[in-house]
Amino acid sequence: MANNRRRDILRRAAELFASQGVSRTSIEDIAAAVGIKREGVYYYFKSRSDILLEIILPQSKSLLMGLQRLMRANMDSTLKLRSAIEIHLDAYNPSYIEMSVALKEQHFGLDDTRMNELRMVWDEYGMLWTGIIREGQARGAFKQEIDAKIVAYGLLGMCNWVSRWYDPDKSTTIRDITDTFAAIATTGVEAAAVAKPEAAQ
Amino acid sequence: MANNRRRDILRRAAELFASQGVSRTSIEDIAAAVGIKREGVYYYFKSRSDILLEIILPQSKSLLMGLQRLMRANMDSTLKLRSAIEIHLDAYNPSYIEMSVALKEQHFGLDDTRMNELRMVWDEYGMLWTGIIREGQARGAFKQEIDAKIVAYGLLGMCNWVSRWYDPDKSTTIRDITDTFAAIATTGVEAAAVAKPEAAQ
Repeated sequence: MANNRRRDILRRAAELFASQGVSRTSIEDIAAAVGIKREGVYYYFKSRSDILLEIILPQSKSLLMGLQRLMRANMDSTLKLRSAIEIHLDAYNPSYIEMSVALKEQHFGLDDTRMNELRMVWDEYGMLWTGIIREGQARGAFKQEIDAKIVAYGLLGMCNWVSRWYDPDKSTTIRDITDTFAAIATTGVEAAAVAKPEAAQ
Repeated sequence: MANNRRRDILRRAAELFASQGVSRTSIEDIAAAVGIKREGVYYYFKSRSDILLEIILPQSKSLLMGLQRLMRANMDSTLKLRSAIEIHLDAYNPSYIEMSVALKEQHFGLDDTRMNELRMVWDEYGMLWTGIIREGQARGAFKQEIDAKIVAYGLLGMCNWVSRWYDPDKSTTIRDITDTFAAIATTGVEAAAVAKPEAAQ
């Protein structure tokens, strides 16, 4: 029961944060959406930042864990890159609201300790993405001359920006987006060769 | 003189918006940064939203005009796509602050009329990007099977997310990012074939 109430607060807060922005959402708004008094919110959470972090951090950590598992997998580089895109985009599906809250805004409001905790997760996540590109380069599967970090941040940006335009109610599915992004990331938009070239070295 | 003051307000406001977020920046903060009283700000601008829009709208319109010119250019599809990426990323160079303000946050605070004006510019911009992909497909230069709109939004997202991680003071240059993004967009990360394939049809 207590857990249900807590989850309810997080869910309603996430919806409000996603639709109107964090800074425009008060504890009163959240309480009203749940149908309780503001004291009821404060019983579970110290502040709006607390609620925000509780939405973003588990979401971010779960993405990170998914990628850590993937890094250990024995898989060819192209498939690994596709899987990384898939892990990231799949999170929009059950957790579109939470992903939106995490990504739509830059979170200026969090205090330094919390921001650092979040930043550490995101930095490691970015490093793992960079690692996928570097591994592909080391294996000769990916272009040597491209900067792995810029590639990683570019592809992550592509996936993160989905939070700004994807609408779960419209016909474009996460599967469509995953297929298209994987195609761009691996072989680009240019029309494919008939015979698949062997990787250099 | 009056114009200088006006420009000064816009510049300081943009810096504050970019570094601490719009909702955490008051007219008082802006006035203090310029070194004037708040009445001095209100002499030029009705509200914070007014200032915000005056930063974002010209920036967005100038990107749109650049792309409109590009669309009319007689140019092969790959070069056109590269040029679109270049136009977008080059805007970070003189106008990093303004681009950040435009892109880092989703602007929940603007009233409907203004938001619509901005949205119209962005929608048209997105349609032009989609048009570049479609043109490339029609010419047989780009893959037929990919969804032009998802590609366009993906690549735009890649470019837009640069506002979250690019640091003009660090060694990665906009030129590096442009080259890398153009490489991903056109031929992907996979190691290139020795002979460039001819496009199908």
